[in-house]
Amino acid sequence: MCSVISRVRPVQRALALTLRLRTSTEGSSYAAAERRRFCPGVSNDIHPLRAPSRSYCSRVALTQGLLFKQLFESESSTYTYLLADTETKEAILIDPVLETIDRDLKLIHELGLNLKVAVNTHCHADHITSTGLMKKRLAGLKSAISKLSGASADIHLSEGDKIPFGKHYLTVRETPGHTDGCVTLVLGDQSMAFTGDTLLIRGCGRTDFQQGCAKRLYESIHQKIFTLPDHCLVYPAHDYRGQTASTVGEERKFNPRLTKSVEEFVDIMNNLNLPKPKKIDISVPANLVCGVHEV
Amino acid sequence: MCSVISRVRPVQRALALTLRLRTSTEGSSYAAAERRRFCPGVSNDIHPLRAPSRSYCSRVALTQGLLFKQLFESESSTYTYLLADTETKEAILIDPVLETIDRDLKLIHELGLNLKVAVNTHCHADHITSTGLMKKRLAGLKSAISKLSGASADIHLSEGDKIPFGKHYLTVRETPGHTDGCVTLVLGDQSMAFTGDTLLIRGCGRTDFQQGCAKRLYESIHQKIFTLPDHCLVYPAHDYRGQTASTVGEERKFNPRLTKSVEEFVDIMNNLNLPKPKKIDISVPANLVCGVHEV
Repeated sequence: MCSVISRVRPVQRALALTLRLRTSTEGSSYAAAERRRFCPGVSNDIHPLRAPSRSYCSRVALTQGLLFKQLFESESSTYTYLLADTETKEAILIDPVLETIDRDLKLIHELGLNLKVAVNTHCHADHITSTGLMKKRLAGLKSAISKLSGASADIHLSEGDKIPFGKHYLTVRETPGHTDGCVTLVLGDQSMAFTGDTLLIRGCGRTDFQQGCAKRLYESIHQKIFTLPDHCLVYPAHDYRGQTASTVGEERKFNPRLTKSVEEFVDIMNNLNLPKPKKIDISVPANLVCGVHEV
Repeated sequence: MCSVISRVRPVQRALALTLRLRTSTEGSSYAAAERRRFCPGVSNDIHPLRAPSRSYCSRVALTQGLLFKQLFESESSTYTYLLADTETKEAILIDPVLETIDRDLKLIHELGLNLKVAVNTHCHADHITSTGLMKKRLAGLKSAISKLSGASADIHLSEGDKIPFGKHYLTVRETPGHTDGCVTLVLGDQSMAFTGDTLLIRGCGRTDFQQGCAKRLYESIHQKIFTLPDHCLVYPAHDYRGQTASTVGEERKFNPRLTKSVEEFVDIMNNLNLPKPKKIDISVPANLVCGVHEV
């Protein structure tokens, strides 16, 4: 099934091989399906569309056949994102929250989706992921998180990895700084970026706990997010002011922190004096094991 | 400038004439601009695009050159919507809330937009609109609300009226039931509908105060909203469960109230036994005068 594996870049080849090795103990049909999933060019019919050149448009004409839902959990102000291929019904869930698992599962059921992967953009400190519990409720669901997060998961992601769902896919960009294991997930046609806590709307994730480092965060955003097209929609893991989306062009121009020099940015971040996240001592240990710790 | 006024339906012609009369006292350049705004076919280059046939896709490829922002006010769980033409920068704001006026004005300023009309989908009972205060801060801004709302405004809207912004426009559909003056605003290509409190995501507005009538609400939704294309995105004035958007197809199939018969619906609505909205005695009188009452 993986006859075009040679077309895949080394990191993807390694991932595909790892998955082949891992899944070989879990039954041949699953292994074959999993190989198809992580071998771009085999089962994924990707057609990046022409991207318009406008900078500040929060709704651009892109990505035919994509189902997209933005969902909000109000206690931790977390956004969860559901993406699916409208034809194959294969779906991906980004940053699901324990408190809203029933809402999310109901929606997935109503829409007739086949949820393949629940991916966390990093090991969250402010809420517990529903990934582990969701795996117990949805047969075949795999969890995914950055390898550098140190968290357990079915799939460990690294720079350049692709997470396909039907004819669409997300590409992993490692964006450390808020934590070591933070990633930004970019839709294949670069029309949407799920930035986790790396880049928020007119803000960014804090850098004063876990492995936070202001300089690394600044470099990640400038090198891995601000290099995306201006029109690329920015969907963060949180917002606290009722904003739902931004664009790369907007943030490059208007983000009050990221428009500063790296020195000024580091100074700002080192003097925020924010209180410790309320749930950090519960959330981080739980999220290191997909949220199923003492659940 | 209005040489094609004969192509406009009677209600629009009346509106255009009203505006011409009203604006004739305000200076000729503004009057001319206002006539252009309310004369479809004159300055509006509208190109409805082919609509895909999928029912449950919350992100479809439509409406080139549209800037769209969904904003949330957490105290009243109200969504405000900002729409603009990315080329002309003409913008419309739907259901702005007093508490978030500074956020909204800052965004409008950052994006370099020329806000022409602030429109309320109805006379809200749960929050005070920022329309009146915004008019004081933005020169030339006009307020708009349904004629049947009984509220004062610069522009009184009726069935079929068009609110243009650049090459785009919203069409007014009267959808009474939650209140007499409720309207649903539909984007020209029918890719988005701003349903106010008429249709919520998997729910609907209550019908037990102001001029509420369950039977009228049911008929409005079935006749004026469920007749839109399945893929048309539904953007309500509120959501209390972290949902940001739905589609007409989804609501027609999954809305737990609207999928019932009219008799069952009326019975459900008449037995909700909800508490009186906390702010109704302040909000309704204020919103009848654009929110500027004792502000």
